Amino acid sequence: MSKKSSEKVTIFALGGVGEIGKNMYVVQYANDIVVIDAGLKFPEEDMLGIDVVIPDISYLTENRDKVRGILVTHGHEDHIGGLPYILKHLNVPVYGTKLTLGLIEAKLKEANLLGETKRILIHPDTELNLGSITASFFRTNHSIPDSVGVALDTPEGLIVHTGDFKFDFTPVNQQYADLHRMAELGSKGVLCLLSESTNAERSGFTPSEKSVGQELVEVFRRAKQRVVVATFASNIHRVQQVFEAAMLTNRKVTVIGRSMVNVVTIANELGYLDIPEGMLIEPEEVNSLPADEVVILSTGSQGEPMSALTRMARSTHKKLDILPGDTVIIAATPIPGNERYVGRTVDELFRLGANVIYGPGTITGVHVSGHGSQEELKLMLNMMKPKYFIPIHGEYRMLKQHTNLAVSVGVERENTFILDIGDTVEIQNGIARRGSKIPAGNVLIDGLGVGDVGNIVLRDRKLLSQDGILVVVVTLSKQEGKIISGPDIISRGFVYVRESEGLLEEANKIVSNTLARLMGENVNEWASLKTQVRDALGRFLYEQTRRRPMILPIIMEV
Amino acid sequence: MSKKSSEKVTIFALGGVGEIGKNMYVVQYANDIVVIDAGLKFPEEDMLGIDVVIPDISYLTENRDKVRGILVTHGHEDHIGGLPYILKHLNVPVYGTKLTLGLIEAKLKEANLLGETKRILIHPDTELNLGSITASFFRTNHSIPDSVGVALDTPEGLIVHTGDFKFDFTPVNQQYADLHRMAELGSKGVLCLLSESTNAERSGFTPSEKSVGQELVEVFRRAKQRVVVATFASNIHRVQQVFEAAMLTNRKVTVIGRSMVNVVTIANELGYLDIPEGMLIEPEEVNSLPADEVVILSTGSQGEPMSALTRMARSTHKKLDILPGDTVIIAATPIPGNERYVGRTVDELFRLGANVIYGPGTITGVHVSGHGSQEELKLMLNMMKPKYFIPIHGEYRMLKQHTNLAVSVGVERENTFILDIGDTVEIQNGIARRGSKIPAGNVLIDGLGVGDVGNIVLRDRKLLSQDGILVVVVTLSKQEGKIISGPDIISRGFVYVRESEGLLEEANKIVSNTLARLMGENVNEWASLKTQVRDALGRFLYEQTRRRPMILPIIMEV
Repeated sequence: MSKKSSEKVTIFALGGVGEIGKNMYVVQYANDIVVIDAGLKFPEEDMLGIDVVIPDISYLTENRDKVRGILVTHGHEDHIGGLPYILKHLNVPVYGTKLTLGLIEAKLKEANLLGETKRILIHPDTELNLGSITASFFRTNHSIPDSVGVALDTPEGLIVHTGDFKFDFTPVNQQYADLHRMAELGSKGVLCLLSESTNAERSGFTPSEKSVGQELVEVFRRAKQRVVVATFASNIHRVQQVFEAAMLTNRKVTVIGRSMVNVVTIANELGYLDIPEGMLIEPEEVNSLPADEVVILSTGSQGEPMSALTRMARSTHKKLDILPGDTVIIAATPIPGNERYVGRTVDELFRLGANVIYGPGTITGVHVSGHGSQEELKLMLNMMKPKYFIPIHGEYRMLKQHTNLAVSVGVERENTFILDIGDTVEIQNGIARRGSKIPAGNVLIDGLGVGDVGNIVLRDRKLLSQDGILVVVVTLSKQEGKIISGPDIISRGFVYVRESEGLLEEANKIVSNTLARLMGENVNEWASLKTQVRDALGRFLYEQTRRRPMILPIIMEV
Repeated sequence: MSKKSSEKVTIFALGGVGEIGKNMYVVQYANDIVVIDAGLKFPEEDMLGIDVVIPDISYLTENRDKVRGILVTHGHEDHIGGLPYILKHLNVPVYGTKLTLGLIEAKLKEANLLGETKRILIHPDTELNLGSITASFFRTNHSIPDSVGVALDTPEGLIVHTGDFKFDFTPVNQQYADLHRMAELGSKGVLCLLSESTNAERSGFTPSEKSVGQELVEVFRRAKQRVVVATFASNIHRVQQVFEAAMLTNRKVTVIGRSMVNVVTIANELGYLDIPEGMLIEPEEVNSLPADEVVILSTGSQGEPMSALTRMARSTHKKLDILPGDTVIIAATPIPGNERYVGRTVDELFRLGANVIYGPGTITGVHVSGHGSQEELKLMLNMMKPKYFIPIHGEYRMLKQHTNLAVSVGVERENTFILDIGDTVEIQNGIARRGSKIPAGNVLIDGLGVGDVGNIVLRDRKLLSQDGILVVVVTLSKQEGKIISGPDIISRGFVYVRESEGLLEEANKIVSNTLARLMGENVNEWASLKTQVRDALGRFLYEQTRRRPMILPIIMEV
């Protein structure tokens, strides 16, 4: 016992709590670190010009010899998207189920990391020895096949991580959630449960994906012309059901949009899609078929500007047009922030004369969530009967609601921990407490740069985006104490020059006068000249326009 | 008859169709133009740095001698917010009911336009002679008191504009919708109905505002500490109900947030609020009262960054804090695009230990829409029985759904017209057809500038916001054919310089080499030098970083 008490389990998140995206959870016992997932998130609206955001993994790189591997629960971007960036700095084995590894491998190939990354296939009944920690898995239902939860057997006890889940009692692919294994874990005794919180604000029970399939058949049958279905590419169950509904209604299916083509190809190769012979046609074949024998399966359910559906809606798709009378099904819920894009796409489709099925899945029936609602979260809690509870995968309000659910089913409130990224929970001799913080944060990726865009760069982009920039160029002769050339004012993003000639002429005078005055006073310190020009011009422009462009004085001396 | 047939009624929108906001509708008969509303809209996400957007009114200024006045249906920003800008260029009388004029006058005062603007008070039974057009009004229910619809009697027949409306059979202020007048108009025969479409996608009947009052009493009663209610300032009915619920539960009310204080003051002065003696307290008095005797009525229901609620949530409000156990009611639905802001505010409030009531009004009961749902739109159509129908006030998809509703209640589909701004409908001898387009568009307002920010400026702001700017400064001697000073590269919003010294040094070399090569070739055309520097540097940076900053070469010659 005395030896046992000198070590502890430490649990923390490097991403995924207090936010949606970049999921990355860590469990450490002594010299063994196990990482669960390595996701990305899409930039917030104030992260101008940023492509994606990944977790700060400096704790892991500093302890690289202890990291036993990354266990990946499923193949969604917010769980695998960080891998290409992270594996560059932390070359550790990656564990995943067949489809998950398939999707990861496509990413690693693109990033030229496939050769140097050890990838290990797991099955739901795999047991992994990761130093002092033994990992096992249980199958869950989610909007992508081959999703699993993770059970980590540590010397302190069982730590269970649910992955993303719902309970779908009629799953499309017959991959039933492993209720028995969950029950077994609960019977054995779960020390700490980490459970996902996406739908913790939603009451009730999320409907089965199968209900979507039934509705698709109805819509396909009613449609007198072509049907376009836009959905997330990774929702293989949904894709499968589109093929099945097409078959039942005598339609062929063509697949468009880069990610849709990629995922359908991978899923088909790995056996996760069952596409009947002859059902799949090329986009070029569409026009040779009667309109009521065609389904177009497309990306663009979020109104993404470059997606196939958006291109069709704007009549700029190279191969396919929307014709009056076509039916377009948007089988997705807009992610917060995308409502306007989706709305605009719907508008354009209506303008083209399409019949558009859009709106909340509860009304249209053509979409259900992949995440469990409150009753399912309670079912998981009831199965696991954890001593300690850490809600994960959600904004603070979702974690809070999930905590309330846990308390409502019997977890002691003082045994629940809402974490921010970097917050730790330490469990020693069965007692959990908050530990010291470890480094955590957002690493911003812009193009090929990782981490070279920080607060100063973002602040400048914000300023530039609001009122633009004025570059003031002037050449001075120090000896003669006069302006040799300029000032020239170059404006970008400030005002439309042709409309504002008077203003810019006056601005020119302000600069000339300021410099003349300063040179008269024999003040010729470089920094002061620049500052005074910037201040005088800034004041003048604010008075005249109420705008504050960035002002960049370039003062040359000859 | 022959005389009659030579003139026609022309109907068009300068704003409010194909968009949410900047409502402005125009009816013209011969030399008489009547304008209905003059709103603003908030900028779309690609209108960087823009404060507000108003309609292009060049048609009206070109025909200023014909414009008989602007009839304002109610006091919301999307109906009155354009007035301070528009009246500067078009000094015509403004007509409105008492509260509407009160809110307009506050705006005109700020813009120093009060003295020179003719403001004419109307009552629901007012009749106005506007040249060949006679205007009358009918009271409607909406989320602000004193809302009216407009009936324009033209020589061609009656044109009815509904304003914004719902049917609230138990209105908070006893201002019942004028069903009888609507029925009368319908009996008389409506040539063309313009009806608002905000909730045309929503089935059923919007609940009465009174249901919110009942729920507020319940929440106030259950709350053991202070209650904060955030709602739109202009929703005077809601504000009244907060005072009533406070009185019933023995609480005093303090009002915070600039627009809430303004509107409560104006509405109180004009008699639209009935605040019992002693109910209203100053924010400074809050802390001297027991927590369960306080209500704080606040702005910030949209999570606006500078609002009172957001400040309290961030613990940066000067006078008031959120304490653990306080109840915060967010009595509003997020406007599309604001979901993230509201979510963040809710997160912060939960972090402070507050009990937050948020989410769809259908679940919380503390918010109802001010706009009628499908059954109410059909009721209006049934009352008016119009020959022609023009859906207004909504995005295209809403106008489309509203058109379908009109057809479902008996309007001929060929008698319905979905308009874009600038599209006209002409009615002559009882026959409507589409006429030629008139100029229409967005006028962007940035600070004091009106119309000096156009596509080029916005494109530059977009570029600058994505990857920043590099200014390359170099001085050449033409005679000696060599670089005298520089190149110096100044970067803003591109990379964090300290992290990228190597990159910028290499960039420097690229510029030097390009110039040396060109000068060697005796190519010294100014424009070509700049273009070549820009191209070479741009190519290099894109290869290295996959970013495309704006590059501004400044090449001086001595």
